[in-house]
This record gives sequence, C-alpha cells and structure tokens, in this order.
Amino acid sequence: MSIRPIEQGSVTSPAGFQASGIIAGLKRSGAKDLAMLYSPRPCVAVGAFTSNLFAAAPVIYDRKLIAADSPIHAIVINSGNANACTGQQGLQDAEKTAAHAASLLCLHPSQVLVSSTGRIGVPMPMGIILAGVDKAVKALAAAGGRDAADAIMTTDTRPKSHAVAVDVGGTTVRIGGMTKGAGMIAPKLRMQPPQATMLSYITTDAAIERQALHDCLARALDLSYNRITVDGDTSTNDTVIALANGAAGNDLIKVGTPEAELFFQAFVEVVARLAREMVLDGEGVTRFVEINVCGAKNAAEARRCAEAIANSALCKTAWFGADPNWGRILCAAGYSGCEFDPTTVNLDFMSTPVVRRGMDAGTPEAELAEIVKAKELTINLDLGAGPGAFTVWSCDMTYDYVKINADYHT
Amino acid sequence: MSIRPIEQGSVTSPAGFQASGIIAGLKRSGAKDLAMLYSPRPCVAVGAFTSNLFAAAPVIYDRKLIAADSPIHAIVINSGNANACTGQQGLQDAEKTAAHAASLLCLHPSQVLVSSTGRIGVPMPMGIILAGVDKAVKALAAAGGRDAADAIMTTDTRPKSHAVAVDVGGTTVRIGGMTKGAGMIAPKLRMQPPQATMLSYITTDAAIERQALHDCLARALDLSYNRITVDGDTSTNDTVIALANGAAGNDLIKVGTPEAELFFQAFVEVVARLAREMVLDGEGVTRFVEINVCGAKNAAEARRCAEAIANSALCKTAWFGADPNWGRILCAAGYSGCEFDPTTVNLDFMSTPVVRRGMDAGTPEAELAEIVKAKELTINLDLGAGPGAFTVWSCDMTYDYVKINADYHT
Repeated sequence: MSIRPIEQGSVTSPAGFQASGIIAGLKRSGAKDLAMLYSPRPCVAVGAFTSNLFAAAPVIYDRKLIAADSPIHAIVINSGNANACTGQQGLQDAEKTAAHAASLLCLHPSQVLVSSTGRIGVPMPMGIILAGVDKAVKALAAAGGRDAADAIMTTDTRPKSHAVAVDVGGTTVRIGGMTKGAGMIAPKLRMQPPQATMLSYITTDAAIERQALHDCLARALDLSYNRITVDGDTSTNDTVIALANGAAGNDLIKVGTPEAELFFQAFVEVVARLAREMVLDGEGVTRFVEINVCGAKNAAEARRCAEAIANSALCKTAWFGADPNWGRILCAAGYSGCEFDPTTVNLDFMSTPVVRRGMDAGTPEAELAEIVKAKELTINLDLGAGPGAFTVWSCDMTYDYVKINADYHT
Repeated sequence: MSIRPIEQGSVTSPAGFQASGIIAGLKRSGAKDLAMLYSPRPCVAVGAFTSNLFAAAPVIYDRKLIAADSPIHAIVINSGNANACTGQQGLQDAEKTAAHAASLLCLHPSQVLVSSTGRIGVPMPMGIILAGVDKAVKALAAAGGRDAADAIMTTDTRPKSHAVAVDVGGTTVRIGGMTKGAGMIAPKLRMQPPQATMLSYITTDAAIERQALHDCLARALDLSYNRITVDGDTSTNDTVIALANGAAGNDLIKVGTPEAELFFQAFVEVVARLAREMVLDGEGVTRFVEINVCGAKNAAEARRCAEAIANSALCKTAWFGADPNWGRILCAAGYSGCEFDPTTVNLDFMSTPVVRRGMDAGTPEAELAEIVKAKELTINLDLGAGPGAFTVWSCDMTYDYVKINADYHT
C-alpha cells in the first residue's frame, strides 16, 4: 500500500522514458531552453490546458492530438518564447516543430506534442528551434530527467522534479513529474476544450486505461495546480500532460477499481508536491500561505472566498511584512461575493484563534505577530454558512515580485 | 450653461456649509484626524456605500438614516480607526459619536452622519473621539473645507478637494467635494443596501429634489468612483455622501428636467475629478492608466475585461517598468471571463496600433516603449464582439505600494 518517494526522482524515474535539456539559444542568458521527453513505447496521453481565450499555438495543437486519442511518444518543450498571439504562423510553427522531432525519431507527427513558455506575441525563431530539436534528440538519455527540468525554467530559481513508486496489484509502478512556474500563475485548467505559464509533465510506467488516467488527472487538478496562485494571472500556455507507457508490466489499471484509487493517491502525491514547489519558488516569494476556507454555502463559494484572500494585494503585502492585520483577510472575504453572515465568521492562524463571531478573538497581538513570521503560514477561515470547503496555496507579494516583473522585458 | 471651476474649491465653497479638521489624537503621527461638515440649514442627503459584507459600523448607521430620508445637518469623520469588525460595541460607538455632535449643535441625533477610516477590528477610543468632536465643533468655519480634507487622509500624500459653479435656471449654484484614498481602493458602491476605504463628500447649495439628487449620484458612480482601482481591494468603509442645503435659492431642481441634467454634468465634473485624483494619489502610484474597453458583448463584459486588466499584477508591474509588453494585457483579457474571438481583437496605446486581429500590429517596439513612459497612459482595447464599452482608471504597482502595505501596521 505504501507510496515511496524516489530519491532524485524525475520524469525519467519511470521505466522506458528518456529526456534531455539543452541550450538551443532562445534565452539571452544562455541557459538551457529546450527540453524533450521520449518513450519508445507508445503512451496513453491525457492533458489539461489553460482556460485563457488567447490559448497559445502549442496548446491548440496539443488539445487536438489528445482529444483524438493519438498514441504519444514524445514532447518538445521550449522556454524563452510562448508562441502565443502568433496566429496561423504560430500554429504552423508548432506543427513544424512536432514534424521535425517525429522525423528524427521515426514517428508520425501526430505522436509528438509541443509546449512553449516565455514572451507572448513574438514569432518563433524556427531556425533556432529546429536546430535545438536536433540537439535534444541526440541528448536523450534515461538519466535526462533533471536536464529537462532545468531547460523548462523561466523565472524559476530551481528545477522542480519529483517521483514516487507504489505497488499496484503486486507490481511496482513509478510516477515521475516535473514543472515550472514562477509567474503568471493562477491556473484554471480544464480537461475539456476550451480550458500560467505553468507547465507540468507527469510520466508513469504503469499500464492504465485512458479513461482511468483521465479521471485521475481530472480529480487531481483541484488538489494541486488549480489550488495555487502566485499573482492571480492565468497564462495563455498553462499545460499539464500525463503520459503512461505501460513499461512496468502491471495488470492494466481500470476505472473504478481499488488499483485505480491507489494509483490516484500516488499521482496526487507527485502533482501536489510539484504544485506546492511552484508556489514556494514563485516570483519573489518569501512566505508560503495555505488558506483553508470552510463553512461556505458550497465548495464553489469557498473557492471564491479563498481565491479573493489569496489574490488580495493587501493580504499578500501584509504577509510579506509579517503583519497580523486580520482585517484585510476579513475584508477580502467580505468583497469576494460569497454569501455569509459576518457575525458567524471565525478565523485562526495555525490553531490560534484570531477572530470569533466576526470580531477580535482577544489573542494578544504580540502572539499573532510571532505566528505570522512562519515561513509557511496556515490560515483557517470558517464562514459558518454551510458545508463548502476549499484550500488555496498562495504566497506573499514582495519587492522582488515587483522588480522581476517591472524589469522582465526591458 | 458653462460649468466653472472654483479656485481653491472645497466642500465649503457652496453657500451655507461650514467645516473643520482637527487633531483628536487617533493617529500616532500626530496629524489631523477628525473632520466635521455642518450646514445650519437642513440638507437633503443621499449616499452610496460599500458592498463589502463586513460593512463598518458607521456605514450601517448612515445607511439607516439615509434610507429613512432623515434631514441631515452634519457629518463627523475620523481617520485612524475604521470601526469595522467591532460588533454591537462599534454600532453603539457610532451612535454615541453622532449623539454627542448633535447635542453640541442642538440637533437631533438622526440629523448627524458618521464616517470612519483606518485600522479594522480595533474598538473606537471613545474618549479621544468625543473630545475631538468638541474641538471640531468649536473649529467649524465657512473657510474650513481645506482643513476637513486634510483630516480625512490616511495614506494619502495630499488633500483632495474640488468645486465648481454652474447657473441653473438663472441662479448660480455651487457643488464642492472632498475625498480620500489611497489604498484598499476598488469601490463597488451601491445606492441600495447592501452596498473603500474611499470616503467622499459632496456638498451643494442647490435646492434639489431628493430623487433628483439620488439619480444624479447613482448615474455618476460608474463615471467616477466605481471606475477606479488602486489595488482591487474593496473596503469595509467606502462611503460617498451628497448633501444639498438649498442655500443658493434657485428654483427646486426636479427629476427629468434640463436643469437636473445640467446639475448632473456639473456634479460629474466634481466627482470624476476627485476619483481621478484618488488614483493619481494612490499608494505608491507613479503612473495613471486609463483602460477603455469597447467591442464587448455588453457593458458588463466590457467592465469585467477592463477590471481584469486594471487589477492584473503583471500588467501593473509592467506599467511601473514602462514596459510595452502587450502580451500581459491580452492575457488578462483572455482570462477575464469575457466572450470574444481572439482573432478580432485590436489594441492601441494612445492612438498607436499595438495589436491587430490578435497579433502584433508591427509598430516598432522602440516606438511603443516611448509611449508607455507617459505619466498618464491610455489603453484602448476593442474586442470586436459587440457594442459593450466601459472605462476603468488604474495605476501601476510599485516598490512603494509594497512598502506602504507591508509596513502599514508594524
């Protein structure tokens, strides 16, 4: 039953996956900027993509392939250019990238997905991209997961990978993942079209039915990527793709079985860890804040309330200043659009009472001031209006956030 | 017909109004913190208040008096304490403040309104407040408008007053106003209960029907206070109150007449100016940004789209950095929830094309970089989906915004 972390785990921890991360030359910094994921065995693929109307070309391209249930062997991922707001040319460029990788790997173009992240509205420098694909194919290796995690970074300060192993029906299967943030992070991912740039890739060597993998990802979203926010901006390029190649040789995991549930638990362990890491490594972040709202009329209202607090500039700057100013939290709940009675609201920082029935709970301010100094703060808000609950992972807003985003372009 | 600005205009520019602003001792800084507005003649009063569920005690108190059509003679306004999230005690304190002012001015308590702004969740120091009211009554003067505008400030850097004169039916009437910002500014004011901390007071010596004044304020909101945002946080204390004492001796302005329309034009001139000033003096603001969205399916969608752009942390930090990164603007429109076709979207900075049909319009980036250096930037976004239009006034997000709000409390 136990889910075991794999040390130095990555997308190549599951059997039968290769990866690479190389310098194509898209980034002025000269850092790695093109990654490739490859499985010689065909993969069942499911994905969730941004709900932004300006979905980037690779998002449009991938959605189509995944909807067609095309068996997938590879993903080409570039940082440094988002290929968004680039029109027909952008779509052709995404297709051309996939076709080039396919020809090198002796695949059909429909077996290769593409992802991009970076600046919006700039045509893809296709010479650099195609030469980069050549290089990335040559660099593919069973130990390449860490290089791939490096190459997909933009404003991230560190690569983010994780993997676990779990025994399903007597056979050990592995689930690995990698992700990048670190700004334009407030994913609202949808499994169905239409749906940060947050990019995340999950690999598994489990043999699993497509529907079971689809359900697994769909259920996992609200427990991971869709509960995080760095700046409240939902990108044109947000992408989560899960690939299962069956190399572990387990009995096929089917929908609605105990095996599927166990696989789901292990899957959530990977994606929740990656989502948390994304907030911890968010632009300029110094403090991680978990906001648990309960007692809302329903889950949707709880989410709306938690997101209002999580995205409030006044709450986020107070967290930066380690300021126990709870008035800003109640204020955000009050304008969130949730329905509740202000006199039934209770608020705790960690397990310390802050507000009771809408008023100061009487905990000495010096005590609260100590609590909010924690690097990881938990805020528990009970609206007292019903059974609805939701959790959001947020962070503080800092000088460095402003600096990174005022200076990003120029 | 002409609407004329009054030099050094304030809430005491209209005939028959007195005001004062004094040091009660609520602010640690020792600055003025209690203001009073007074008209010996009874005033018709209308108001609009925050839609935040945690409406502060003075908001609850004022709403009741205004709904009862009580003739109003005075308003007591304190900064330094919001009297919000203070329960029954807070309501009693608001009543006590009004009653004390009433007794000093030989009025009925129902003829005095109260407003508060400052820290949430702290009981009102009633000794300081009541002694301050004594002092403020003694200081009332026909030239006191500027002092009152000083005393209502919190993080504002300068007082904000304005007044105009206009001839209605052969008689000159005057309209004056004062306001304060400068954070927790994204008013969503409602004329009806339930409805920043933005506080704003409009005085006029015009004789005007209550319904006409009500309609005037209701129509003016979307052209002024409800189109501004500094940080997207809607306060527990937002209040706009308009008082008309009839001292000008004009023929009563009635609903639906040309005179009411003219009065409305002059009224908007005052409140729009005050609302703009509030953004220009917003916390840490270095750049004013007008966002005009047109071509939305309807006005509500245009507003939603404009507000998404206006409150986007990535757009606001780009404006601070004078970064022509239009991808962030399109991205915000794309996640706003508005419905439109990305390939019909056009964007201009001032009158310079930036995006045509969802793609780069080809204006050299150096040219755009020059335009976005303006202290006042106009962004025109046409979604190409319908007749809906809305304008929002926003600003950049700066180091100083973070500093002011991370350090406010401690």
